[in-house]
Amino acid sequence: MSKSMEDSMNRNSSNMRREGANGNVDGRHSAVSTDDELLDIRTGALEHWHDSDEEETSKNLNSSSSNLMDTLDDLPPGIGQYEDFHTIDWLRDIARDRMRHRHIIKNKQDGIWEKVKSAHDAWSGWVCVLLVGVAAGLCAGIIDIGATWMSDLKEGICAEAFWLNREQCCWSVSKVDIDDEYCLQWKTWSEMFGGSRSGAGSYVVTYFLYMVWAILFALLAALFVRVFAPYACGSGIPEIKTILSGFIIRGYLGKWTLLTKSVGMMLAVSAGLSLGKEGPFVHVASCCGNIFSYLFPKYGTNEAKKREILSAASAAGVSVAFGAPIGGVLFSLEEVSYYFPLKTLWRSFFCALAAAFVLRSINPFGNDHLVMFYVEYNEPWYIQELIPFVLIGVLGGLYGSFFIKANIAWCRYRKNSRLGNYPIIEVLVVTFVTALLSYPNQYTRLNTSELIKMLVGRCGPEDDTDLCDYKRNYSSHQMNETYLKSMTSSTVIGDGVYKALWMLALALVFKGIITIFTFGIKIPSGLFIPSMAVGAIMGRMIGIGVEQIVVANHDNPFFENMCESKQFCRITPGLYAMVGAAAALGGVTRMTVSLVVIMFELTGGLQYIVPLMVASMTSKWVGDALGKEGIYDAHIQLNGYPYLDSKEEFTHTTLASDVMRPRCARYGSAVRNDPPLSVITQDSMTVEEVEHVMKSTSHNGFPVIVSRESQYLVGFVLRRDLNLAISNALKLQDGIVYNSIVYFTNHVTENPNDPAPLKLRKIIDMAPVTITDQTPMEMVVEMFRKLGLRQTLVTHKGRLLGILTKKDVLRHIAHLENQDPESILFN
Amino acid sequence: MSKSMEDSMNRNSSNMRREGANGNVDGRHSAVSTDDELLDIRTGALEHWHDSDEEETSKNLNSSSSNLMDTLDDLPPGIGQYEDFHTIDWLRDIARDRMRHRHIIKNKQDGIWEKVKSAHDAWSGWVCVLLVGVAAGLCAGIIDIGATWMSDLKEGICAEAFWLNREQCCWSVSKVDIDDEYCLQWKTWSEMFGGSRSGAGSYVVTYFLYMVWAILFALLAALFVRVFAPYACGSGIPEIKTILSGFIIRGYLGKWTLLTKSVGMMLAVSAGLSLGKEGPFVHVASCCGNIFSYLFPKYGTNEAKKREILSAASAAGVSVAFGAPIGGVLFSLEEVSYYFPLKTLWRSFFCALAAAFVLRSINPFGNDHLVMFYVEYNEPWYIQELIPFVLIGVLGGLYGSFFIKANIAWCRYRKNSRLGNYPIIEVLVVTFVTALLSYPNQYTRLNTSELIKMLVGRCGPEDDTDLCDYKRNYSSHQMNETYLKSMTSSTVIGDGVYKALWMLALALVFKGIITIFTFGIKIPSGLFIPSMAVGAIMGRMIGIGVEQIVVANHDNPFFENMCESKQFCRITPGLYAMVGAAAALGGVTRMTVSLVVIMFELTGGLQYIVPLMVASMTSKWVGDALGKEGIYDAHIQLNGYPYLDSKEEFTHTTLASDVMRPRCARYGSAVRNDPPLSVITQDSMTVEEVEHVMKSTSHNGFPVIVSRESQYLVGFVLRRDLNLAISNALKLQDGIVYNSIVYFTNHVTENPNDPAPLKLRKIIDMAPVTITDQTPMEMVVEMFRKLGLRQTLVTHKGRLLGILTKKDVLRHIAHLENQDPESILFN
Repeated sequence: MSKSMEDSMNRNSSNMRREGANGNVDGRHSAVSTDDELLDIRTGALEHWHDSDEEETSKNLNSSSSNLMDTLDDLPPGIGQYEDFHTIDWLRDIARDRMRHRHIIKNKQDGIWEKVKSAHDAWSGWVCVLLVGVAAGLCAGIIDIGATWMSDLKEGICAEAFWLNREQCCWSVSKVDIDDEYCLQWKTWSEMFGGSRSGAGSYVVTYFLYMVWAILFALLAALFVRVFAPYACGSGIPEIKTILSGFIIRGYLGKWTLLTKSVGMMLAVSAGLSLGKEGPFVHVASCCGNIFSYLFPKYGTNEAKKREILSAASAAGVSVAFGAPIGGVLFSLEEVSYYFPLKTLWRSFFCALAAAFVLRSINPFGNDHLVMFYVEYNEPWYIQELIPFVLIGVLGGLYGSFFIKANIAWCRYRKNSRLGNYPIIEVLVVTFVTALLSYPNQYTRLNTSELIKMLVGRCGPEDDTDLCDYKRNYSSHQMNETYLKSMTSSTVIGDGVYKALWMLALALVFKGIITIFTFGIKIPSGLFIPSMAVGAIMGRMIGIGVEQIVVANHDNPFFENMCESKQFCRITPGLYAMVGAAAALGGVTRMTVSLVVIMFELTGGLQYIVPLMVASMTSKWVGDALGKEGIYDAHIQLNGYPYLDSKEEFTHTTLASDVMRPRCARYGSAVRNDPPLSVITQDSMTVEEVEHVMKSTSHNGFPVIVSRESQYLVGFVLRRDLNLAISNALKLQDGIVYNSIVYFTNHVTENPNDPAPLKLRKIIDMAPVTITDQTPMEMVVEMFRKLGLRQTLVTHKGRLLGILTKKDVLRHIAHLENQDPESILFN
Repeated sequence: MSKSMEDSMNRNSSNMRREGANGNVDGRHSAVSTDDELLDIRTGALEHWHDSDEEETSKNLNSSSSNLMDTLDDLPPGIGQYEDFHTIDWLRDIARDRMRHRHIIKNKQDGIWEKVKSAHDAWSGWVCVLLVGVAAGLCAGIIDIGATWMSDLKEGICAEAFWLNREQCCWSVSKVDIDDEYCLQWKTWSEMFGGSRSGAGSYVVTYFLYMVWAILFALLAALFVRVFAPYACGSGIPEIKTILSGFIIRGYLGKWTLLTKSVGMMLAVSAGLSLGKEGPFVHVASCCGNIFSYLFPKYGTNEAKKREILSAASAAGVSVAFGAPIGGVLFSLEEVSYYFPLKTLWRSFFCALAAAFVLRSINPFGNDHLVMFYVEYNEPWYIQELIPFVLIGVLGGLYGSFFIKANIAWCRYRKNSRLGNYPIIEVLVVTFVTALLSYPNQYTRLNTSELIKMLVGRCGPEDDTDLCDYKRNYSSHQMNETYLKSMTSSTVIGDGVYKALWMLALALVFKGIITIFTFGIKIPSGLFIPSMAVGAIMGRMIGIGVEQIVVANHDNPFFENMCESKQFCRITPGLYAMVGAAAALGGVTRMTVSLVVIMFELTGGLQYIVPLMVASMTSKWVGDALGKEGIYDAHIQLNGYPYLDSKEEFTHTTLASDVMRPRCARYGSAVRNDPPLSVITQDSMTVEEVEHVMKSTSHNGFPVIVSRESQYLVGFVLRRDLNLAISNALKLQDGIVYNSIVYFTNHVTENPNDPAPLKLRKIIDMAPVTITDQTPMEMVVEMFRKLGLRQTLVTHKGRLLGILTKKDVLRHIAHLENQDPESILFN
């Protein structure tokens, strides 16, 4: 188990326990974690092929094993549940769901009520994702409103109605921008304490209170996380990727995590830390997905099916984060989801759209656009500009690699040093430094998403900020076409822009560095917005540079098509900022298509898809050349999550026999000190012997073979089923004693002198996935990925040689990549 | 083999042969179709695991079987090639590619040249898709220009420069719309022949020449298809789906098909038939993909890898068809591609974008927008409007189902009656009827995509067409704001709109019916545009209806938010047309996310995504309720292509033992008249016996077992490899005679009295995929889909029972669905 996971589990064990019980919404937790409960022996009958008599099944093509399905109505509790930190078995879960589905279809003829049940079943997926989408939209709306209000609280308060944020408070004044405009209703803290709005004293008071508020918010966030839900820290995307790949982390998507994360996000964003709430929205939406899936047994009781809902929920998360439903679906498809059947594509889209629609109806930002950084300009871009765009892409890729390496190094240091023991102090120190350094610079003092909005915007006639201080030759009362053209075209920059460039450079360095230390502290924190901010600052600076080069050389034939005359060059630095944001985000996350789609949904600029693509492509290539993994994969590896990457190719030439346990066991002889394979024979072991095998190992299941002498594979039996069946039989069945022979066949040789035999034919899986020992590992990895296997049995000419679990595969990959195989969290 | 395929093959057998040879671009055809060539025995060494000595491989984890890879440099011809109408083996092909890749990586250290080769290999995928994208864009541009020119040729000619189309010809006149505006340069045919522009005589002449041109174009198209490439007919999407699912149709993507299809498309569109060129663009782009893949051996010689390029190419096809790169990628992902590794997502996007960019640079439509039906309006939509949108969705779904059923019934009739023998006459009749009926109605006379453009547009102040004949109260010299507002808002319709509604109703009926007979005739024909046209007409009519209801009840509280006053209601009938187009297209093709994305890229209306989604969702649900398959799947089934649908779930309860051959063979005894399984023993058969086994069956491969008595599975050997190895050994190896024992093991018992043994250990696949006889078919189907299997071996307790091929699975599915299993085209 990884240290970080262990830490949070040990240090907060009491909270964890609460979280575990609460997170598991329907309270079945206790039924799951104990193996030795008395379950009905029909447990095993769930796999329908167990139950069909070998000699009879194949006679009729369409005869379903109907009599056995009746047992479905009273599902024993705990079926299909897994223990915490275990890997799910997709094949088994999906087979279970298909059987449930067939059962419902079959019963459909039995009257109205069954028809209603069938319709409910058919629609439950849609209803569920609708609910998830609506819930995700609501959560996002509440968080957005709360975060805006609390952010503004750092600087002042609405005197007449404290519950309004600054923008709402100053509604009467036509517009609010970053310059402190005069708005009577809105009071800065220095005004509230009787001081003036400007002046050195006021500055100090406001600065001081800004820091106090920031530290207070951060402290609250850190405390909430520590007390209520340790899983609420970070962005959550690495863990959700792991969960979707088929791993159980109980409580990670529970309601306490949801609440804590929501509140913590508001606080963390308001504290002015260099983090965003966009990544955590994915976690929040996934929590909604998990919680609502319990309303529908089809999803709630089947971990594989539940992941379909979670895929849709993560799409909704990105959708509400950026107002980008299509981008959300592609993000879910490309980045998060693992086992993405195409039929969930449509449902994910529905979910994402519902969420975006709800959020838009709430309208937390008070603007009418669905998108966050809507660019109103419609300027063309020129083919020559692809050169700076590629440059921006290279810089974005370099920044991304640098960020990943530095952040992972810092997180590793935190994990392995005493620093990890003081998470709250760390949060406070980071907040203190951030607040101290960010207040003096107007660009860092701003809310990060407002900063990006400003940077991707263009300088219109009405803008009088530093960033738009161009030397225009026309006075503003000449309101004619030439004037307007002049105001929106590029020209020589004035002093304000020089000042702005200096401030932006400082902001770039500050943001670039502080984010490394921020991402990973124990409060909810996302990466999208800080990365985009760094990229946008970089892009805007390069854009202004290019603009000045073009203006200075406007008669150069190379720039000819970009300028009408010296006054009328058409370079849009805002576009460079947009491209820069995409490049930096691409470098950090290594997203591809979803990134471009999100960016263009974010800005509404369909015509800028080529520049965005060029930059993010360059960024990904440069980034990949310096280090293959994106930040999420790097964190997955750092934490040792058992994630079998479906994108990375397995390129080694090892064979299954190199990886299976027992290692290098050839024809029955084990070498390398591996314990011999624990097997059960089909008709020669007593109950006692079987129990001994179970007690002496901790495997999740055991292969069943013909006999010790002839090790041909019969099937596979799960420890859980075997345990339940035996303890049940010992208590309830007459004549079963420890000396009883356990039979896994139908041919029981009953001898009156022997004790009654225990027939367990029904609980074994007669169709385990097998491979030969000569199977190349690349194919084995492919099978694990695509079929969602938990384990496979290795045979040689029909004889059982060993077993190969997902954990073995992961450890093997880690070993080949010179990482510590022991770092993989167990399944 | 299906009749249609057979027909086209038999009737045009000489053309087919030419097509086959030409289509297979690098001319390896002959090396492929004959099995008995002399190939190097190292053929089998390609599977690296064959070659590793069983006792040694597993010793060193990282030791690659390096000595064997040297054989890679001189690849024997024909490796990885399949015969026509065969199924490819993804696993084998992908393993082969991985080995090739490892070989290159290993050699990378061997100097500059190897480094260059490695870099070339790494980049070849990108270069290839770039070329494909550019080529697809060029093809689309040429086709668009040609089709526009020829379409206009039906009505007249540019007097000064015959190579200009009407729009270019009248460039000097500010705008050209559907009313015959006065443009001096453009002469109608009646003018050319000395007549006047208007009047009855002129009408008759123009009408007559319109029909002559149409029939001429159609005849040419039909002749081209018949003479040069029979595969160029239809939309091509069903076949491309089948090819991408792993089937070989040689020549289907060859250069003759490309040329014929391109020219044929221009002609067919120009003939004014009710068909579009958008679907065939996918075929054209895929042809480009196939042709360019031969430039890169990595793709050209590996059918599985080639399909990655084809996936990207089909994305490019949709991208150029609609100017919708993102929609293209999603279309490729959702509809066409089968085995879509995520890493190709990015490459597909690149390809699609390159194609769109090239097309935009060519600018065939002469407008600046990347998109075809760019809507300039930015009107809001209201929540109440969702009711008519749902209605439109229902109608779209009904139309889709009706169209599919009617079209399939007609195509089946064509296949099974004498009609199928006269394809050219059929084309001429359809063209005659189309031209005769479409000329009198201005809406059907128009190019279909122009019709759609008109229908989705709004009525601006400058529009004076029938469709925009609203009763405005302001005269046009009052150029103030109120006037403008009045001109763009909804109001009571005038006589022109009534007339337009009648004409549209007639056009709807005509288009709806004629398309059924058009789709499937033996010329290139797409379905997107006609379906969208039907939907757009329907939507516009409903939109006008809703508009009038709202205008009439503008003071009803239900409509309150939509109207400011009687004059200022804001209903946009164009939006209804757009929604209708999406609904009808959704009903016909059952596309989902890609449809919505294409529609919104097509119109640039990000804010209309909810209406589009609502309508296409309703349409799909309604359509699915009436018949599960989209038009492409229905055509796949009609033609009996071996397509294993990855979206449809297998819901039956049969087991592998019910499907495998020999049927119901239990413990070696065959029943039901199936011939016993042809197997080869590992060390007891002579060359003669092995040849006898091969001659007496037509299987593609044979399982190798320990011995007749102990039928444990050793491996699998391909007929092809076995054939080559034996005939090679007989000719080249000393001492090998028909009496030689064939050994598939390393333990050869050499006896001086016996003839020299033939050691074939290297050619067998020691890692065949196996399942047990108790495996449920749903899992088997899942394995075939996800792993791309060609066959799997069925065992029971290690003993070989039978074999299960993709064809068996397909026939089984057809049988369960009460279809004729024999209709499946062989693999």
